[in-house]
Amino acid sequence: MTPPPGAAPDRIRLGPGTEFDVIRRFLELAAAAAPGAPPAGVLLGPGDDCAVVRTGGGLAISTDASVEGVHFRREWIGAEEIGWRAVAAALSDLAGVAARPLGLLVTMAAPPDDVPAFVEQVVRGVVAAAADAGAALLGGDLTASPAALFLDIVVLGEAAAPVLRSGARPGDSLWVTGALGGAAAAVAAWTHGREPPPAAREAFARPRPRWREALWLRDRGVLGAMLDLSDGLAGDAAHLAAASGVGVVLDPRAVPVAPAAAEVGGSPEAALRLALGGGEDYELCFAAAPGAVEPLAGEFAGLFGLRLTRVGQVTAGAGVACLDPDGRPRPLDLAGFRHFEEGTR
Amino acid sequence: MTPPPGAAPDRIRLGPGTEFDVIRRFLELAAAAAPGAPPAGVLLGPGDDCAVVRTGGGLAISTDASVEGVHFRREWIGAEEIGWRAVAAALSDLAGVAARPLGLLVTMAAPPDDVPAFVEQVVRGVVAAAADAGAALLGGDLTASPAALFLDIVVLGEAAAPVLRSGARPGDSLWVTGALGGAAAAVAAWTHGREPPPAAREAFARPRPRWREALWLRDRGVLGAMLDLSDGLAGDAAHLAAASGVGVVLDPRAVPVAPAAAEVGGSPEAALRLALGGGEDYELCFAAAPGAVEPLAGEFAGLFGLRLTRVGQVTAGAGVACLDPDGRPRPLDLAGFRHFEEGTR
Repeated sequence: MTPPPGAAPDRIRLGPGTEFDVIRRFLELAAAAAPGAPPAGVLLGPGDDCAVVRTGGGLAISTDASVEGVHFRREWIGAEEIGWRAVAAALSDLAGVAARPLGLLVTMAAPPDDVPAFVEQVVRGVVAAAADAGAALLGGDLTASPAALFLDIVVLGEAAAPVLRSGARPGDSLWVTGALGGAAAAVAAWTHGREPPPAAREAFARPRPRWREALWLRDRGVLGAMLDLSDGLAGDAAHLAAASGVGVVLDPRAVPVAPAAAEVGGSPEAALRLALGGGEDYELCFAAAPGAVEPLAGEFAGLFGLRLTRVGQVTAGAGVACLDPDGRPRPLDLAGFRHFEEGTR
Repeated sequence: MTPPPGAAPDRIRLGPGTEFDVIRRFLELAAAAAPGAPPAGVLLGPGDDCAVVRTGGGLAISTDASVEGVHFRREWIGAEEIGWRAVAAALSDLAGVAARPLGLLVTMAAPPDDVPAFVEQVVRGVVAAAADAGAALLGGDLTASPAALFLDIVVLGEAAAPVLRSGARPGDSLWVTGALGGAAAAVAAWTHGREPPPAAREAFARPRPRWREALWLRDRGVLGAMLDLSDGLAGDAAHLAAASGVGVVLDPRAVPVAPAAAEVGGSPEAALRLALGGGEDYELCFAAAPGAVEPLAGEFAGLFGLRLTRVGQVTAGAGVACLDPDGRPRPLDLAGFRHFEEGTR
């Protein structure tokens, strides 16, 4: 075949129908948000039965759902923010393996009343987040929903040297990027009928996937194991420990609690619970050899405006423990977010 | 990295939590349905932030949503059939470009009452359909849904020489595989409170994606343009015509109407409407040079137990027309399925 250009809307030739009118409008918005040729590696963009890509090395793929009433509520954030957040959460999975975003597919099931106005605003957020990451809109599926708005974002990334969860070794240090608990603070405030502090709202509505940071750290050879923080540090550290066959001891005094979490939490203990247990900060958590990261932290902070914080230690054993006030490790009871155990998510 | 094996459940190491228990169970079912090593090209299976694949040529990707109350109802088909059907529909998009299935990711948003029993049955159908196509379960996302069951299936396939919708030329013949209207006949029967004929029920509940057939035809060099029939022949012919910049004239007397559609439809006209307008037959529609396919039809039927039928002609011009009883082309008013215009889908 002769590969046609990717997302140029004059190439998108679909038959008649309201659904296809809506899709055509989406592709116009995507082309406006990211003018020019699609990324190298995109052989076929949207408009056919499949998209087709080709990469020299590995291709990383992940899918991430955002469901109304589970992951977000319309009373909390606007349509554009719903779209941005869904894409950022999916791109964060690429960051978790240090893959460079290449493209995405968007499945949306929308209540009929949302079509086209609300859905178009969601798509504006989707294409803005995609364009920010240099990811091309490659396709998707648009359908009706009997009730809630449902988004599923499929992301594709170039993973020349993916960093897995399984590479942590006893003796490694455990690090996180940024500050934790901001998004959970926003949810806590909304759940109690309060408006969250602006920084907490921003953390929830406009998360920034850390793929640039992940690539930078990978290129410096310090990443032993990594994942993104979508379930909360406690739960995600447990995933990393299980995957690597190691234990993790967290130092609660070292955890970089977001100021907004402190403000919403009220007490230092409550703020720490938001930082450890609250999902969806979309920061990175990684294990590195002792002493390897400290020399890089200043340059990292200067480049990305983001702190690197050592929050714990990888040990022999299993599971996640937390240092008590006397510096003794105690098994951690606070697990990450549980989709089927909590009412609101 | 050293690639760990794909779907071996003893390699899936997640932290504690009900959600992860459910995911572990899914991966056990997937491993049982498809024992042995994952397909070549799968560098990293489920359990990390992303799956990682590598193919020599192009990689085809598509995503396909199945929403309760829109695409299926629980009163119509069982949980396993819901899973099979969702995967078959997605694999059909790979067939539409003549790609060989490689793997899939499964996003499911399920009402809490469905976890784990109903959802496990859905997953049995998912992994059965995936195993039937040699596609590895590479990942996904499992979350709660406030109401309906949502499935989104992401399929990946090797597309060494993808066949696009855009390659039809005036003078080509238009062909379809199999018989049309069976799935629509089932929906029509259920909608009117009747039990559909077994063949119609089977067409809806257990569609067979035609990727083997597509690869066979591609290897014989006859495919000018192709797509799968998910919106109905009339609507999908319009997509092919639009993508290729041509017109299509269908011969209604040639359309291979499924016997079950004739039975449910009652009149030949009603049966034809089901065959032309009913989506989700998941057969193939393709354009080929005149005379190119006829010599292959016998061998094809013998190999696949499936008819090849010439249903029309590609012309200069635009849009889809239908021959009237006097053999004159009349613009076709019957469009494909419209997700936002019909009540039940």
